[in-house]
Amino acid sequence: MKAGLLTIGNELLSGFTVNTNASWIGLKLGKIGIEITVHHTIQDNKSKIIFELEKLSEMASTVIVTGGLGPTHDDVTASAFYSYFEDSPIFDENYWNDLTDRFSKINYKIPDMNRNQAMKPEKGEVIQNELGSARGLYFKKGGCHFFALPGVPKEMKAMLNNSVIPILKNQVTNPLITRTIRTTGIPESALAEKINKNINIHHSQCSVAFLPKLTGVDIRLFCRDIKIIQDMEENLTPVIEKYVYGYDDVSLEEVVGNRLSELGLTLATAESCTGGLLGHRITGVSGSSNYYLGGIISYNNEAKMELLGVKKKTLETFGAVSEETVREMAQGVQSLFKSDLGISISGIAGPTGGTPEKPVGLIYIGLSFGKEVAVKKFNFFHDRDSNKRISSQVALNMIRLALKNE
Amino acid sequence: MKAGLLTIGNELLSGFTVNTNASWIGLKLGKIGIEITVHHTIQDNKSKIIFELEKLSEMASTVIVTGGLGPTHDDVTASAFYSYFEDSPIFDENYWNDLTDRFSKINYKIPDMNRNQAMKPEKGEVIQNELGSARGLYFKKGGCHFFALPGVPKEMKAMLNNSVIPILKNQVTNPLITRTIRTTGIPESALAEKINKNINIHHSQCSVAFLPKLTGVDIRLFCRDIKIIQDMEENLTPVIEKYVYGYDDVSLEEVVGNRLSELGLTLATAESCTGGLLGHRITGVSGSSNYYLGGIISYNNEAKMELLGVKKKTLETFGAVSEETVREMAQGVQSLFKSDLGISISGIAGPTGGTPEKPVGLIYIGLSFGKEVAVKKFNFFHDRDSNKRISSQVALNMIRLALKNE
Repeated sequence: MKAGLLTIGNELLSGFTVNTNASWIGLKLGKIGIEITVHHTIQDNKSKIIFELEKLSEMASTVIVTGGLGPTHDDVTASAFYSYFEDSPIFDENYWNDLTDRFSKINYKIPDMNRNQAMKPEKGEVIQNELGSARGLYFKKGGCHFFALPGVPKEMKAMLNNSVIPILKNQVTNPLITRTIRTTGIPESALAEKINKNINIHHSQCSVAFLPKLTGVDIRLFCRDIKIIQDMEENLTPVIEKYVYGYDDVSLEEVVGNRLSELGLTLATAESCTGGLLGHRITGVSGSSNYYLGGIISYNNEAKMELLGVKKKTLETFGAVSEETVREMAQGVQSLFKSDLGISISGIAGPTGGTPEKPVGLIYIGLSFGKEVAVKKFNFFHDRDSNKRISSQVALNMIRLALKNE
Repeated sequence: MKAGLLTIGNELLSGFTVNTNASWIGLKLGKIGIEITVHHTIQDNKSKIIFELEKLSEMASTVIVTGGLGPTHDDVTASAFYSYFEDSPIFDENYWNDLTDRFSKINYKIPDMNRNQAMKPEKGEVIQNELGSARGLYFKKGGCHFFALPGVPKEMKAMLNNSVIPILKNQVTNPLITRTIRTTGIPESALAEKINKNINIHHSQCSVAFLPKLTGVDIRLFCRDIKIIQDMEENLTPVIEKYVYGYDDVSLEEVVGNRLSELGLTLATAESCTGGLLGHRITGVSGSSNYYLGGIISYNNEAKMELLGVKKKTLETFGAVSEETVREMAQGVQSLFKSDLGISISGIAGPTGGTPEKPVGLIYIGLSFGKEVAVKKFNFFHDRDSNKRISSQVALNMIRLALKNE
């Protein structure tokens, strides 16, 4: 079943408000098997709204409109609905009394301006709003369901949950199921190449989408048949097993944290160019104090030597950004915190500080686990912030891979 | 001047990705006087994209399209552009060699699939992408400018800034000027109250908007006359001077960093609940190694005692989240790094770990500067991530205020 979404408001177009309503509604409808196939954002303008009601109902069997139900002059959604459905709204005395009462409870005399919020349709229905004064509207026309809801997120969410979802749920048979496979450490195209050999990504009943982010690529499967999704997942995973860190909403720091907990191991961090980002991500997981002991942000060489025990000679011979230095940093932080694992990062985040031999984006990561130390070298070519982010991701992934077969 | 925005991607419609690109573009164009009057989001579908290029160009003189420029089968934006503009793209050998080189630097053989990203238009122009493999497209038709940019925010932003804005800027006459006054440490309503007394925020030629965020409130002035904006700013600033940390896009960590540089002072951090976020923010500023020496993430009590020299008795008597502990942490990190300033944070980020006496959101921040130590106590009541973010902001603001009159 398809839905069209119309969000109304200048503040959305100008960018002062991020349209979080749209994604919230997308997820919510997706869960009951309704797919938003088109989303338009327009200004508060009556004739434009009427035009969109017509357009969107040609493309979808449900049209959800948010915004423009307030009491002021620029709120024209209700009026557009009445015109489009050729309805003659009537004044709802009971609701007006109710509203007057609500205002008096917060010591306000209700402004006359609010009278337009007490109108109710003859041909359509009212959607109650427990949290505000703007009620919603529900109309049916030519097999299409039309809803108008306020733009205030709290009110819209409560009304969608309590009134819209129950109506729509009954209309859906055979909902779409989604499964996300989260990968890191492989570019989108290389991942697609691996997968294409083993599965038919143009499966007639299951669609596959690649969602690349700086820190990895998500593969998303959509299908109406849970068995086909499970089959796809079973065929897919072995081919790319090394890169898959989890499913659906899980983050890499959660996966690593859970694994450390399972194994009863502890971790400490030594960060140079990431400046604390790795520690920040690890401690973003509630309960991280069970396995994360702490870290050193060794931004200058003195900290590397005095706190982490990196040898002066190592720094002089190989430099702060080198295999040898991160090796000693990882061992140093492991021994300082008496942790099972010590992870270290040193690199040139940019935009300055690069040289021909050591360009911006050169990052070394060291992992000391028990008595073994592994060091990896990377050449990223991003800006400062991205280099920090991708370095923290790669470091977490090194820990994940090291603990995979423990 | 009017612009239409087309954002492409199932992940936007399904709600898996919040469309932050749209609001970012809205703000960015608004700054040079271009108003987005319509925004459509559709699926990756070639004929739908072609249909929208036609529709949006009827409503606006600039059409910006994001998304669908990747190498995989579901990326069809470039192909839709070539069809709509009746162009025959040609293979760009130089760019292909460049891409091959970039992949080899991260130890990958470039997949054949990426060849479609090396195509270039004959009738239109290519928009360079320094941060990724997907280049953009620029076409002109019937007085309308059409741009295709990738959906990856970092790449889209850099390309819009470097290539799109310079082209569009020349088209605008009498643009709207925007000035943002950035504040922190005061709630929106208190700020508005202070301001309302001194200026007429309903000025006929200059509009004022309050933009509250977790970490502070931005006051935004819009006007077509630079002199009026300057007058407004001059009237406004003295009333709220203590809370203003900067203007326009500057961040608090940049302001603090610049001030430390100016004064030739150095800083070290001791973080408990923020887990490295403060260090991460400080080192997000290029050149921070001039004043930031490093830090300790003292996530457990051993680190607080052994590295920072917090007394066992202090921890036993007052606990890790206390005025006394953050005082010793600040002094400890200052003396460990031999820095001029030492800043410390300890608190209960949540969602677990709270008690009736020490609830979630209780945060202490200590600042040791020379021989003086100041400690502040805060009661936030946010989720874990927000508590970490707001704590790092408050800590930076304490440093800013301490250095204000130095």
